[in-house]
This record gives sequence, structure tokens and C-alpha cells, in this order.
Amino acid sequence: MTELFKVATVCEARRIIWEEYIRQQKIEIVPLLEALGRRTAKEIFAGDNLPGFTRSPMGRLEAGKAWRIATGGMLPQGADAVVMVEYTENLDEDTIGVVRPVAPGENLILKGEDVVCGSPVLQPGNRIKAQDLGVLAAAGVTSAEVFCKTRVGIISTGDEIVPPDQKPPPGKVRDINSYSLFGAIVEAGGEPVQYGIAGDDFQRIHGLLALAVEDNDIVLLTGGSSVGTKDMAVQAISSLGKPGVLFHGLAIKPGKPAIGAVVSGKPVFGLPGHPASALVVFYLLIDPLIRLGSYPKENEEFLEFPVCARITRNLRSAPGRDDFVQVRLVSAEGELCAEPVLGKSGLISTLVNADGLARIPAGKEGVQAGEIVRIKLF
Amino acid sequence: MTELFKVATVCEARRIIWEEYIRQQKIEIVPLLEALGRRTAKEIFAGDNLPGFTRSPMGRLEAGKAWRIATGGMLPQGADAVVMVEYTENLDEDTIGVVRPVAPGENLILKGEDVVCGSPVLQPGNRIKAQDLGVLAAAGVTSAEVFCKTRVGIISTGDEIVPPDQKPPPGKVRDINSYSLFGAIVEAGGEPVQYGIAGDDFQRIHGLLALAVEDNDIVLLTGGSSVGTKDMAVQAISSLGKPGVLFHGLAIKPGKPAIGAVVSGKPVFGLPGHPASALVVFYLLIDPLIRLGSYPKENEEFLEFPVCARITRNLRSAPGRDDFVQVRLVSAEGELCAEPVLGKSGLISTLVNADGLARIPAGKEGVQAGEIVRIKLF
Repeated sequence: MTELFKVATVCEARRIIWEEYIRQQKIEIVPLLEALGRRTAKEIFAGDNLPGFTRSPMGRLEAGKAWRIATGGMLPQGADAVVMVEYTENLDEDTIGVVRPVAPGENLILKGEDVVCGSPVLQPGNRIKAQDLGVLAAAGVTSAEVFCKTRVGIISTGDEIVPPDQKPPPGKVRDINSYSLFGAIVEAGGEPVQYGIAGDDFQRIHGLLALAVEDNDIVLLTGGSSVGTKDMAVQAISSLGKPGVLFHGLAIKPGKPAIGAVVSGKPVFGLPGHPASALVVFYLLIDPLIRLGSYPKENEEFLEFPVCARITRNLRSAPGRDDFVQVRLVSAEGELCAEPVLGKSGLISTLVNADGLARIPAGKEGVQAGEIVRIKLF
Repeated sequence: MTELFKVATVCEARRIIWEEYIRQQKIEIVPLLEALGRRTAKEIFAGDNLPGFTRSPMGRLEAGKAWRIATGGMLPQGADAVVMVEYTENLDEDTIGVVRPVAPGENLILKGEDVVCGSPVLQPGNRIKAQDLGVLAAAGVTSAEVFCKTRVGIISTGDEIVPPDQKPPPGKVRDINSYSLFGAIVEAGGEPVQYGIAGDDFQRIHGLLALAVEDNDIVLLTGGSSVGTKDMAVQAISSLGKPGVLFHGLAIKPGKPAIGAVVSGKPVFGLPGHPASALVVFYLLIDPLIRLGSYPKENEEFLEFPVCARITRNLRSAPGRDDFVQVRLVSAEGELCAEPVLGKSGLISTLVNADGLARIPAGKEGVQAGEIVRIKLF
């Protein structure tokens, strides 16, 4: 219990979760076209050489002789370079002139030079991109062994929450986080499972949590994570099993009242009720587990916030915590600029207008207009 | 025919295609959760104020009085600011001290301050993101009017192409582009339709093209677009209808032998046979039509290549054309760096190892190691 209620940095939070997380993702075989966006479970090997041409069938070329071939066509045996037809001229019926010098090996690809038969085409854990489908097709791979999608259970808490199809009575609000998190999980390549609204009923929260932990790889509990009168998330998560809650509080803004836990080897997160805060915690702690199957290395923060742009106004931030600011990207004076989408922290309409999240690292006390900030695009 | 065979810049190509393209995308209504990644067909309006609280039900606060509420809870009438409980202390049973000053309007959100009932929540043409689902749920929107997915037909040409499940005989290769383009279309939010391999049979190419133009919003013909002996793409496209082929050749590398056409108001593209070239042309001319429903403005090129990184080696390029180089992103000495993934132009294995495409603009004759380049991530 020593770590409980301690405010963790993002790095600490990732380390603590990762140490207790027991990966046991299932594997399935899917047809090639359905493998897009999925993570490879094992190395995928080429069944042939690429290119696979032998050089013999077209007869043998001797020194000083030429043979006309099409782009991508087979080379006659003995040929050691290709010259583009634009750089030749016909001197007589049997003789051509080569007007640009060509070196041995130029404009040709040797059998197996691209991919050698039996060598790995894709490494395990890679997310299969559009071009990977092409390369797999080229290698004769028509189905792929991939990890099953990460299942992520979502439970909403709070007596004030009603479903979107209901008109909220005074003092109540519609469920927002179940829906934005559903979308964020799909975008990360996961499979969201909504468990509905648990209210502030401890037994109901406990019951849904136990069910969700059983049936999913990761569980998200939204709302109820601030240290308030109705806070039951910590108790409910702790009652599920060991090691339970590992941190309560993240050194970030927004998103501070986040809870991180592991139960039976599965990560369980309590996310703040504010929609923007919940999404920031999702992108930092949950998205990488779904998308990459792990957290990025500590020195790879640049890969997480790869876009850089000039911020258009001064922003204050407190040292000692990472600040995240919603920004809209605009092109101004030939440069990429980031306009902060400002508004009170509880607003949700600001989320619609933002293209991404700019990070002001813990070491800084703010940024000046004109400074370059790093951004993760939504 | 004056424009035919003219090498167009990317801007010119976009302008020519856009002028002839007749948009007639159908609309459908989908349940909220299925709207993720789809483009809104019309403005979506809020059915309620956000927040929707009236302030009356909790009694009236007079000046100098305080009332304890939960985060997100209703404000009593007359209250004009909220102070965090951490910044108060109990002086006696009926009196609190406020230890940090609080201004009128602080820590509260007025009824309708976030979204006013009846005001637009999403603009038409927006791609619905994770947070948009949340905002729509908050506004009581449970289904959305979206554009039907852009249908994109893919036809492979070339007698040398065999399907991935066949072992290519000498001189033949497996179909790559149908598969990488399939993936790229899905990633852009479109619906790919494969029409198989047409060989080099003019009648068969013509027949499949006519069918594909009839049934799709955009048609892609891969291979057969270089000015070679077997070139039939231009003839086949031109035979379909007006205005037909608008440019043949793009001032880019790779991707030069691209064909742009519009037939019966629908864009038809002939893509180069080299997989990397085909993808570059796809990302520049086809991806925006699927993803955004239009081309970005000319001054928004920064938005298309939003990531900047330091290139790790010198690269030459010819002035007068945009060069695109596959790069791998790495974090080195606290900076984001782009390592060119080099290899002969026909190789496909290089595609697997690249994270994105760096652009060397037409005005430059190359980049020096250490220079910042702009990148589009795959």
C-alpha cells in the first residue's frame, strides 16, 4: 500500500503497470486482406525469392551484345546491366549506340536481392500497414498469424450519468466517456466492450468490474476517480484481487485523478470524469498497450509526439508535471502552427475543434508564443 | 488532347482532376458508434444545452454563504464561483476559510456555455473522431447522417502478373499493388473493390474499366502506365468517355509515369507498376479524395507532411520535381531523426521498413544531413 495515493509520473506509471501486466494475448489466423492493422504474432517468412526470376530462359548474351527487355522483365544470362531505351540510338539495323555510360549492376535487380526465400518479411509485433499487405502478397503469403484484438471493457460510474438516448433530468448528464473511449479503442486497433452505467452502487461496480476483468485484456472505469465523497473506484478495484491499485494520481494536467491498477495480471484503469482528461490518460497509458502491445521506450517520447509546430500564444504550466493542451493545426506564413483550443477544463466542445494534443514537458514552466511544441495528432 | 502526355505538377494534377470531378456521394444514416471515421454529410445539431442544468433546484445562496457540491454537480441559484475543497479550511462548524482567492465565474460552467441547444456540434464533411462520438453522445445524438464510403475499384494489368496464391512461373511476378492499394484505401476510410488481373488484353481491360467506372466513385488501374510497348492504359481509359485522360506524367519521383483521367465525372488513375511509386501517387492524388472528400488547399502542404525530423544523410534530388524518400523515424540525441530507407527503386522490402515519406520540394536540389525534412507518416 506504500505506492497508493502517490502521484506518479507517466514514466513511473508505465513502469509500475508493465511490471505487473501478464501478457497472454491469443493468436488467430486471418486471410491476408483482414490482417490490415493487426499485429503479427510471429515472424512471417517469404516462400520464394523476390524477384524470383532465373536468368537462363532467354539465351546467353555475350560481351558487346544487347537485348531489348521491358521494365521488370527477365534478364538474359550473361547480361550485367540495363540501359534505358531513352539513352540509346539506332546506329544501323544491328547496332545501337549507348549515349549515357552504364555501370555493371545498374538498372537491374538480382534474383533474391529484394527478399531471399525463407528470410523473414515481417517481424513479430509489427502492425500490418497497407504496404505490408503488398509485400506479403508478393511473398506468396495469403493468410497471417496475428494477435487477437485487445479486448477493452468500459464501465461508466456515477449516479449522475444517463445513457445518450435519455433526456437528462436536472443535475444529470449523458454518458460521454463510454463513447469517446469506444472510438479511441477502435482507432488504436482494439475491441471495445461497453458494460453500461454502474451508478455509484458499490456492489454493482464491483460486480461489473469482476465480469469485465474476467472477459477482457484491459478494463477502464470512468468517473469516480477523484478524491471525493462518492469515490468508490479505488475500493472497488482493490477488492478485486492482487496487486490491485498501484498509483492514484498522475503528474499530468489534465488527467491528474487517474488510477492505475493490475488485477490478476490485467491492467485496470480508473479514468477521470472530464472527457478531455480521460482521453489524455487513455492516450498516454492505454493506447500504446493496444496499438503496440507495450509502452514506448523512455527515450522515444519524440515518436509519441512526432508533429512539431509553432505555438501561437503564450501558455503557462506548472513545473513538475506534463501539461497537455488541445491544439488546432493551421498553416501560417509558410509554417505549421498550433493554435491552442482554449476553454474551461470541463468543456467538451473544445475537443471537437482540436487536431491534436501538444505536450509541455514537466521541466518547463510554460511556452512562449512562437516556440516549437511537439504534438500527437488525434 | 493538348494536355495529354504533359507532365503535370501535383498542384496542376489536383486542379485538373478536381475541375472535372462530379461529386455525387450518397448519404446514409448509421448508429452513433458506427459513425467513427465516417464523414458527416450535414451539420449535426445539439438537441439540448450542454451543460443542461438549471440553477434553481438547490435553493438560493446569499452573498457570503457557501454550499458543498461535487465536481460537475449543480450550482445553487445565486452562487457565482466554486472553490476547490483543498483550498478551504473549517474555521468552526458553520464557517469555512477560503485560502486561495477565487473570482466570479471561476470553476463553473454556465448552462449552455459549452454547447447551446440547437447550435451545430459538427460541421459537414468532418471525419468523426473518437472525441466526436463523445460530444455527439453528450448532445443526445444517437445516429448520424454520413457520406457512404467512397468506393474505389482496383484493376491490375500486365501479362506478367499472377495472383498471390499462385507460384509465378519464370518471368512473372505476384500481384502486389492490388493488395497494398486495398490496404491504403481502407486506411483512408474508403471501400476497395478488387476487379482482378486484366493481363494485357485491351478488350478485357476496357471491359473491366467500364464495369468499375459504373460501380465505383474512383477507379485505379495499376501497371501499364509507363510509355512502353505494352502500354494500353491510356488507350483503354480514353476509349471510355469524356473528358478522358487529362495528364500523363507527374513531376514527382517516384511516381512519374502516372495517368490522371476523369470519365463521366469520376476520377480514373493509372498508377505505375512499382509498388512504392504507386503508393506515392495514391497518397498525393487519391487518399485526400477519400479521406477529406477534396484536395487540401495549396498553402496547406504543411498539414499533409506534418512531421518534421532531421534527415541523417545527404540526399540528391533533381530540381523541378518533388522527390519522396521513404524514411524510418528514430530518436537520436534527444531529437526526432529520419533515416532514409535506401534501395533500388524496384525493391519492395524497403517499404516494410519505412515509417513514412519525406518530401524534398521541387525547388530544392537535395537535402544535407542534419537538415529538417517534412514527413507524412504511413
